Amino acid sequence: MALIVQKYGGTSVGSPERIAAVADRVIRWRQKGNDVVVVVSAMSGETNKLVALINAVNPIGSEREKDAILATGEQVTIGLLALALEKKGQPARSYTGGQVRILTDGAHTKARIMDIDGSPIRKDLAEGKVVVVAGFQGVTADGSITTLGRGGSDTTGVALAVALKADECQIYTDVDGVYTTDPRIEPKAKHIPVLSLEEMLEMASQGSKVLQIRSVEFAYKYDMPIRVLSSFDETDTGKSTLVTREDEVMEEVSVRGIAFNRDEAQLTVQGVPDRPGVAYQILGPISDANIEVDMIVQNSGSNSTTDFTFTVHRNDYHKATQILARTCEALGARAWEGDESIAKVAIVGAGMRSHAGIASKMFKVLADEGINIHMISTSEIKVAVVIDEKYLELAVRVLHQAFGLSS
Amino acid sequence: MALIVQKYGGTSVGSPERIAAVADRVIRWRQKGNDVVVVVSAMSGETNKLVALINAVNPIGSEREKDAILATGEQVTIGLLALALEKKGQPARSYTGGQVRILTDGAHTKARIMDIDGSPIRKDLAEGKVVVVAGFQGVTADGSITTLGRGGSDTTGVALAVALKADECQIYTDVDGVYTTDPRIEPKAKHIPVLSLEEMLEMASQGSKVLQIRSVEFAYKYDMPIRVLSSFDETDTGKSTLVTREDEVMEEVSVRGIAFNRDEAQLTVQGVPDRPGVAYQILGPISDANIEVDMIVQNSGSNSTTDFTFTVHRNDYHKATQILARTCEALGARAWEGDESIAKVAIVGAGMRSHAGIASKMFKVLADEGINIHMISTSEIKVAVVIDEKYLELAVRVLHQAFGLSS
Repeated sequence: MALIVQKYGGTSVGSPERIAAVADRVIRWRQKGNDVVVVVSAMSGETNKLVALINAVNPIGSEREKDAILATGEQVTIGLLALALEKKGQPARSYTGGQVRILTDGAHTKARIMDIDGSPIRKDLAEGKVVVVAGFQGVTADGSITTLGRGGSDTTGVALAVALKADECQIYTDVDGVYTTDPRIEPKAKHIPVLSLEEMLEMASQGSKVLQIRSVEFAYKYDMPIRVLSSFDETDTGKSTLVTREDEVMEEVSVRGIAFNRDEAQLTVQGVPDRPGVAYQILGPISDANIEVDMIVQNSGSNSTTDFTFTVHRNDYHKATQILARTCEALGARAWEGDESIAKVAIVGAGMRSHAGIASKMFKVLADEGINIHMISTSEIKVAVVIDEKYLELAVRVLHQAFGLSS
Repeated sequence: MALIVQKYGGTSVGSPERIAAVADRVIRWRQKGNDVVVVVSAMSGETNKLVALINAVNPIGSEREKDAILATGEQVTIGLLALALEKKGQPARSYTGGQVRILTDGAHTKARIMDIDGSPIRKDLAEGKVVVVAGFQGVTADGSITTLGRGGSDTTGVALAVALKADECQIYTDVDGVYTTDPRIEPKAKHIPVLSLEEMLEMASQGSKVLQIRSVEFAYKYDMPIRVLSSFDETDTGKSTLVTREDEVMEEVSVRGIAFNRDEAQLTVQGVPDRPGVAYQILGPISDANIEVDMIVQNSGSNSTTDFTFTVHRNDYHKATQILARTCEALGARAWEGDESIAKVAIVGAGMRSHAGIASKMFKVLADEGINIHMISTSEIKVAVVIDEKYLELAVRVLHQAFGLSS
């Protein structure tokens, strides 16, 4: 008897018919002798509709109020799925983030989960119920509703799996797993049956849209296996990708996949006085505004000044430029500039550790195509570069080919 | 400095533009030096959309789950109104029923308010904020979301006004007050500027759609004045109806208005053994199923049997017939029958007390038109009759004329 947490995204619960299909699948897993906890997103399109309402009323208003509005999408789905399960004879009980007490910090619209009280869920499971929990949302200690940011339902799924010590967290989506790169850009992209949490972390953080990065961080931190499956496979026998501990990943290749994203914007401060504390003075106010910074590069310049470049999510770009303008003045920097037309491309693979020359091969492949590199960032298992957005598709295809992923 | 609770219905908050207009009005009341608490319904059409989703998935499922779904409509509106107020420079804070802790019993889809914790609201008001509360919903002691039934937002408004000891509860709707009868049926219907809570109670329970009956019961019990106003009057100087203590209602007329409804269905048990406890045996199971019974008539029959007739809301008719069929068998009753094509018409007025012959005049007026009466129910300030639904409009018009309301 295993305990499975299943998460279904918006497309998987996009209509009463799709919700009935999810109920069927949940019941099949129950009938195989498993306890099942289900995390659901809002029905596809609902969150966008709520965002449009917010923007029509007051796009720059209090994020506490926005969260109260946004959280309703998932609340509708949990009720509907519980009703669908009941109709098929399976007792079920729904919980909002606040009801199951998914306690978060107060960073509205991108809150972080602090704690989950698993006891009411365990009680329901012991009574033979399926428990349905709203993804994407939580509650602060003082009872305000929070949301976890786009894709936060994955995080809810993994966090619940960790809190309940589940055997596996299954993420149902509209694709049957992780591919070597996005097949819409490179049709030769291939399915990856198993990869390590570390590799997935880099794939996710570099922009693979299959899993939300914070969910993978959570899974990595607590060693929770994630399985990515297609909710359109009604047989439960199709392909899937298991994301698990590195020692369980047998296949050893140098580069596992090509990740990319167009979600970032680049900001550069030029002619900053080169003295200790400058990085903090620039990034402190950005971070205080709850803006996440991804890549950071500092180049020593001439005349005791330096150039400082970093990237933020495009959604935060406007806010970041306002903060940066004030910081520049305070620092006596020469100028700052921003660029929203960038893209990030990365090669990812645990096998890189033992293979020299991977990074330089990447730079050569790009140079051969005349693609200029703005920034570089490396880790043990990835090399990421920022390039002009217009070269993105080209870069993905030539790298996919060059690292033997197309064969 | 007064404390005003304002309630806005679905039409009043039906679009971003209408929500902005509500925000303007709230701010005008603030600027006159009042503290304002606002209760809002779901945007018009939203609750029906949620009901359609529920019906598509499982119309006879758990009412706890239905409530979780239905409560989202108001949750969207509170966030949007708070954002609209902020945009216009007025600090605001929203609360769901669960957040402000509107504690109810567990009778899902028609829960009753047990208690409200006004302290967080008082704190916000003291800080100069407008507080926006979701109507129609509450929370049980164990944290399940409940709804109060259609029109429950009025009840939330009055209950909050009572809990906060407000000076007045203003109910904004799409009409500018209470009329002597529904102008869509009798174009000569006249506006009533002041009437007593007792009269309003009878008007509401007899089907006047302006105020929900439980809200008037609440106001009556706690002596809370209600003012009905139109949310389409942008000048705050138009007509309104003040519903208040009887001794403050100056105008003395015999009949204040003609109320009616088509929301009920009639059930009759024939040939019930005439012995003590029969009424309880028939109505006990109905009440256990949380079905409210309105009119009850028992006629002594012959041969130690009796006929027993009562009315329920049409929504509960199907459920009630199923229960009644079982009860009949258990009681050894001869037969039962039901009729969904009935209507109830009532004359209402505190002045009736001191005027003899009002009831018999009513019966004569109906008889003169050939309208047969199925059931009669009287109180100190109303006489209500059940007639065939097809005669409803005719009955309303002749009574409106006969009691001098058209002049």
